[in-house]
Amino acid sequence: MAIITLLTDYGTTDSYVGEIKGVLLTLCPGATLVDLTHEIHPGDLLSAAYVLHRSWHRFPAGTVHLAVVDPGVGTSRAALAFRTREHSFVGPDNGLWSGVMHGAPVEAVTLAPPPQAAPTFHGRDIFAPAAARLARGEPLSGLGERFLGLPRRLSAAVPHYEGKVVVGEVIYVDRYGNLVTSLTPEFVPDYAVLEAESLVIGPLRTTFGDVPTGGLLAYIGSGGQVEIAVRDGSAARRLGLGVGGRVRARLG
Amino acid sequence: MAIITLLTDYGTTDSYVGEIKGVLLTLCPGATLVDLTHEIHPGDLLSAAYVLHRSWHRFPAGTVHLAVVDPGVGTSRAALAFRTREHSFVGPDNGLWSGVMHGAPVEAVTLAPPPQAAPTFHGRDIFAPAAARLARGEPLSGLGERFLGLPRRLSAAVPHYEGKVVVGEVIYVDRYGNLVTSLTPEFVPDYAVLEAESLVIGPLRTTFGDVPTGGLLAYIGSGGQVEIAVRDGSAARRLGLGVGGRVRARLG
Amino acid sequence: MAIITLLTDYGTTDSYVGEIKGVLLTLCPGATLVDLTHEIHPGDLLSAAYVLHRSWHRFPAGTVHLAVVDPGVGTSRAALAFRTREHSFVGPDNGLWSGVMHGAPVEAVTLAPPPQAAPTFHGRDIFAPAAARLARGEPLSGLGERFLGLPRRLSAAVPHYEGKVVVGEVIYVDRYGNLVTSLTPEFVPDYAVLEAESLVIGPLRTTFGDVPTGGLLAYIGSGGQVEIAVRDGSAARRLGLGVGGRVRARLG
Repeated sequence: MAIITLLTDYGTTDSYVGEIKGVLLTLCPGATLVDLTHEIHPGDLLSAAYVLHRSWHRFPAGTVHLAVVDPGVGTSRAALAFRTREHSFVGPDNGLWSGVMHGAPVEAVTLAPPPQAAPTFHGRDIFAPAAARLARGEPLSGLGERFLGLPRRLSAAVPHYEGKVVVGEVIYVDRYGNLVTSLTPEFVPDYAVLEAESLVIGPLRTTFGDVPTGGLLAYIGSGGQVEIAVRDGSAARRLGLGVGGRVRARLG
Repeated sequence: MAIITLLTDYGTTDSYVGEIKGVLLTLCPGATLVDLTHEIHPGDLLSAAYVLHRSWHRFPAGTVHLAVVDPGVGTSRAALAFRTREHSFVGPDNGLWSGVMHGAPVEAVTLAPPPQAAPTFHGRDIFAPAAARLARGEPLSGLGERFLGLPRRLSAAVPHYEGKVVVGEVIYVDRYGNLVTSLTPEFVPDYAVLEAESLVIGPLRTTFGDVPTGGLLAYIGSGGQVEIAVRDGSAARRLGLGVGGRVRARLG
Repeated sequence: MAIITLLTDYGTTDSYVGEIKGVLLTLCPGATLVDLTHEIHPGDLLSAAYVLHRSWHRFPAGTVHLAVVDPGVGTSRAALAFRTREHSFVGPDNGLWSGVMHGAPVEAVTLAPPPQAAPTFHGRDIFAPAAARLARGEPLSGLGERFLGLPRRLSAAVPHYEGKVVVGEVIYVDRYGNLVTSLTPEFVPDYAVLEAESLVIGPLRTTFGDVPTGGLLAYIGSGGQVEIAVRDGSAARRLGLGVGGRVRARLG
């Protein structure tokens, strides 16, 4: 049962996603196609990497993940297919895969554009055919030259200490206005008090029910990061915070 | 052929729907996944119930319907799986299922959160696994304790009489600005004259072609309710009406 | 392996697409359903025809394409099913199929509404059942009366000459603000200089990397038309141009 997930910044209004799906189903008949999202803000590699980071490992081993957020289409960034931890990945080498690599061995090849490829639509003409071939069981090594080195990684937002305060930042804002931060549980002991910009939020809670409707809370989100939310509201709007906003865990 | 439909208020920008689909395909390989919508306004149970009401029975017997609009995630509302009229349903017990129950017998169980469930993402960690297990044929009784009583229902907007006038209200507004009302055909005889707020619309028509472009009309919509529309335009915008707006059928 | 593509202006918020998919999976169990888009602006036949034009031939022979952008639902426009070049097409006869017909023979039938069809939702009650029947292998001739003549075509935007200048227009604007024009490569030799309204853009380039970030360029797009774009930006916004905007290729 071949599964191919798709993540792009193509939106769902134009023909681009449909054209890619036509190519996939032509080259890998019967594949199950799953949209992760096509609503990445054009060129927003950070958000794309975060969504991939959360999603890929929820799928069964053998899944092929096709991701195309590619502000560099038509420049010299490499086109990649690689395999790690029993999943396959196809897309540009521009940092998109930062959340996928965690020290596990990676086997990668570069994809050469076929002669008739549109220079502005590698998603359809280079990446989709490669994903379909992997999904139907062709070996990675048949797709291109071995790629030496590792796919590029975006520089992660790593929390740092300022005295007895751990300083992190907002790395993603979801539909509900929940603020996903770079803080992870090991930085935030039970007695820590969280602050967003100059506002005190309090200690970590378990879930929304722990505060009244409209209340602010910090908690370990479903992706493993500390998140800040307003119960039945938007923390992004309440706090006026977005990606890059400062979040602190005060340890004493 | 397992079919699982999905309805949420998660939107399609974040990873949430993708994570759920990964869980579904891991636990029920080969399932056909169908998005009803993920664009329910966050927490809007009324619209979610209306969309479910219109959609579920269009699918073949045996379909599993997974719906998560769950402003109470992390509070004490029950997590349910139930079966009625040869379809299965999985989601929170908060009124979402109001349009599904019509006197037919319901067999229901409560789902206990597995220990590792994220307290803020029951869609992925409680509801999706239950839906996948039902879709692959496991018996409902194996999923949890029997649920006594019936799933909660939202209080319906029931038309009432004021003398020779039937008074209903707008219960849903669609993409085109068509106003779906609580009036059903049995309240609106041929000779009735429809009014929206203080504006006379006229008797029921059959279809858009019965009025000129830009004309207002009332008709029995494809979901069985009286609807008010503007041909090639938006009745919501023209009339300034939304959910809760008054609609009258004058009987004499 | 039955494949049915869907293109509508129904959006993804309401129940309409879900209801159609329920009908398709009921009548053609196991079909693979692929959304081309549901975000066509209501009634925008030109954009719908362009998206279909680009997409249908990317799918394998035998695919059924169901498209419903139908401002005339409930008027006298015909409901069609037709076959050309080993693909099948189902939808209203209103110009939607302009990009599909290119002189190849077309075999077409008109679909009669079943008695219980909702007069305002032919997508669900006429077109979807016909698409499902074709997808499961029923002959076209069994679906209705033979349709004499050809499906309607929108009048195409054909470039014309004004002295040594070829004048075309913008026919589509995509998510990125790229302007797709009516100019095709045979009108634009290497030495031609492109202009949008009164702004000189220059000769055709190959891809985005040929200009600096923020630079304007013209190139042969992935759909075969001349397009105008801003690298990492929006040409629509920069130039203030939309559908119908004038584009010129100056030949000397």
